[in-house]
Amino acid sequence: MTATAEHSTPTGASARGAGPATASAAGTSAGPAPLAEFLGTVLRGLRALPPLDLELASAYGNVLAEDVATKAPLPAFDHAALDGYAARYEDLVASPGRPVRLRVVGDLGAASWRPVRLTPGTCFCVAAGAPLPATADVVVPATDTDQGMAAVEIHHAPKKGYGIRRAGQQLPEDAVLARAGSVVTPAMVAAFAASGIGRVVVRPSPRVAVLSTGDELVEAGRISQPGQVVDVNSYALTAAAAEAGAQAYRVGICDDDPEALRGLLADQTLRADAIVTTGGTGTGPGDMVRRVLTRRSVVFTELSVYPCATLGFGTLGGEEVPVICLPGDPGAALVGFEILARPVIQVLAGAEPVFRPSARAHLLETVNSPAGLREFRPAAVAERRGGGYTVQPLPGGPYTLSGLAACNGLMVLGERVTTAAAGSTVDVLLLDRKR
Amino acid sequence: MTATAEHSTPTGASARGAGPATASAAGTSAGPAPLAEFLGTVLRGLRALPPLDLELASAYGNVLAEDVATKAPLPAFDHAALDGYAARYEDLVASPGRPVRLRVVGDLGAASWRPVRLTPGTCFCVAAGAPLPATADVVVPATDTDQGMAAVEIHHAPKKGYGIRRAGQQLPEDAVLARAGSVVTPAMVAAFAASGIGRVVVRPSPRVAVLSTGDELVEAGRISQPGQVVDVNSYALTAAAAEAGAQAYRVGICDDDPEALRGLLADQTLRADAIVTTGGTGTGPGDMVRRVLTRRSVVFTELSVYPCATLGFGTLGGEEVPVICLPGDPGAALVGFEILARPVIQVLAGAEPVFRPSARAHLLETVNSPAGLREFRPAAVAERRGGGYTVQPLPGGPYTLSGLAACNGLMVLGERVTTAAAGSTVDVLLLDRKR
Repeated sequence: MTATAEHSTPTGASARGAGPATASAAGTSAGPAPLAEFLGTVLRGLRALPPLDLELASAYGNVLAEDVATKAPLPAFDHAALDGYAARYEDLVASPGRPVRLRVVGDLGAASWRPVRLTPGTCFCVAAGAPLPATADVVVPATDTDQGMAAVEIHHAPKKGYGIRRAGQQLPEDAVLARAGSVVTPAMVAAFAASGIGRVVVRPSPRVAVLSTGDELVEAGRISQPGQVVDVNSYALTAAAAEAGAQAYRVGICDDDPEALRGLLADQTLRADAIVTTGGTGTGPGDMVRRVLTRRSVVFTELSVYPCATLGFGTLGGEEVPVICLPGDPGAALVGFEILARPVIQVLAGAEPVFRPSARAHLLETVNSPAGLREFRPAAVAERRGGGYTVQPLPGGPYTLSGLAACNGLMVLGERVTTAAAGSTVDVLLLDRKR
Repeated sequence: MTATAEHSTPTGASARGAGPATASAAGTSAGPAPLAEFLGTVLRGLRALPPLDLELASAYGNVLAEDVATKAPLPAFDHAALDGYAARYEDLVASPGRPVRLRVVGDLGAASWRPVRLTPGTCFCVAAGAPLPATADVVVPATDTDQGMAAVEIHHAPKKGYGIRRAGQQLPEDAVLARAGSVVTPAMVAAFAASGIGRVVVRPSPRVAVLSTGDELVEAGRISQPGQVVDVNSYALTAAAAEAGAQAYRVGICDDDPEALRGLLADQTLRADAIVTTGGTGTGPGDMVRRVLTRRSVVFTELSVYPCATLGFGTLGGEEVPVICLPGDPGAALVGFEILARPVIQVLAGAEPVFRPSARAHLLETVNSPAGLREFRPAAVAERRGGGYTVQPLPGGPYTLSGLAACNGLMVLGERVTTAAAGSTVDVLLLDRKR
């Protein structure tokens, strides 16, 4: 699959090495850590899930764990490309200026298997896909003939080789059709089948468990009121994990009870490849998730990022299942998911690239952004018919849920940006691309 | 969801009305029919599947059957946007120039439900999400205070209203959050949950059965040889149907046996919302699908389209299940799927827009195209950092399977185009966009 957008990383991170930032290592400095270093550290510590072997019928949408190469030349044998008459070119040009008449010695379909050979002055009536008779070197389209049954008159002789697909003409044996890390597309499935491949080695979709924490939370379908706030995040982040390619399931709501959280996490480390929690990542007395998990191996890092200043990451259990802790505010949780959880899922899935595609876009309206923080600001991106993108801040504020529901991109406003003026060019992450 | 690319229809068709073409109605004229009319006729005759009611947890990825509106104002009640101290603004500015000290009369978390009220000179310590005490009109961030427990000193007074989210500030009750026809995104799930919505009315994913026909066909995993050709199409088109949002299943191979085909189709009309066949659409003696289905209500139309000159469409059974007949050549079948089957699936799914997004792109290499035919030519599209697209013809030929596997767009070269020069601008359908 050819990339359609540049996969620079306006998150400021590189999955493979240190980002452009210069400050101290994530989680150890006094000030907030730059996202680049934090993310680099997290992602470098992860491995893709072990591969599995799938039948071709189940391959679509999975990430290839290894390069896939042809098992036979493509096409595998010489055949007719179209319906017509397989002939010897020299018979067609033997008597220039006079109509060519050939004896039709048989019909060949795609199911024909008996080797046949043309003798001078004869031809076979062939269907598209039929194996080519030996010594035939042209297929005359039926429409250029009188379509005779016993004998055929050729109105117009095509070029030598016309209407023929030769064995190996498209690809030799052992040619790479698709690279490890790419997602299997319908056309790849076609190319795999055609070149003898019946099974592919892929990474499984990571199983991602999503849970939200908070005594105030209630299930969706009710209207929030003081003390009873609808659990928005576990629904939305389960969807976000599915969108990222995970096999996502909603564990649901966990009260602010350390024992209950420990139990839930112990259960989930047995069945999940990654766990996403939301809520309780602050430093206040109500921030139970942080208190419980910092006693395990989870590190909560203050980042120079807006709107998710704190993100937690670590691994749990003997299997070292990655745990990602996102803030409780739904806007911050969704942005935090994009920044941290989605790349983690991509690495587990063995997918390349790890980051969303990005583009440069013409900003339609001046926006302000907090100093010292890299802001990921939901916005509406549009393509212009003449080429290029525009980006429009959302009416009603970027971090409102209605704004998020309408957005299809995240503007990335760097640490030093306090104002981005209308007419200037900004980076945007494109949320509606497959890769 | 804001559109990210223009949804013009370089297929030449409009789902709602006649296309720009001028020739005679599809299937009835002597010459090949323009795609626009054929597609217009097909799509106008279809209805979206009956809707169903889903729990929010299952809503992601489905197409909304009706507009979704808030069931409560968003937010539903006044609350603190951040951790800090909820206060009366007039207390903060009562004595300009002197440090402000307030008595902390209690702690409020997101789970607090008891209505409380501020008296002059007091404040509540609040967590983000906590309901706002009556008469409080500002939340001072904890970081702008000495973070006292019994009393707190305010270092810096924010503006009146800071740190507060008022009920209805984002959206009033009964405001539209998402339109019918759009696909539910993670952020929509968040907005739905937050505004009291626990169920949504969506269209089911169309169940699409895919079968290939031909005596020569064998299952994938073998190498094609004369008389035994691997069934590429039913694997690839099942994947393509899944990509189009269908619940796709591979029926598999049907021999060129009219009775077997009739039986298979009768079975599938009971369980599928649409059926895709490939192979046998020509007019030769081996073209069994065409012979069998033209006796039913399926019409085979010769189109001024390259590379799929013949497409079949009709409905079968009492339920009038749409049947789409694609050519047997894998390249033509995949392009035919894009042209006809994908829009049909989108209409059944109730999705808008029906067509792939398209863009104008700078052609990097001169290509030739057959006169009188609208060509859909697989190509590699790339975005340029400066904005706009380039499109590169595929090495080794556009309709090779290896070429298709590498493509991410279809160049659309109109009926009058015989040469498109390097440097000119052409339309491309973008195959790697979600909508």
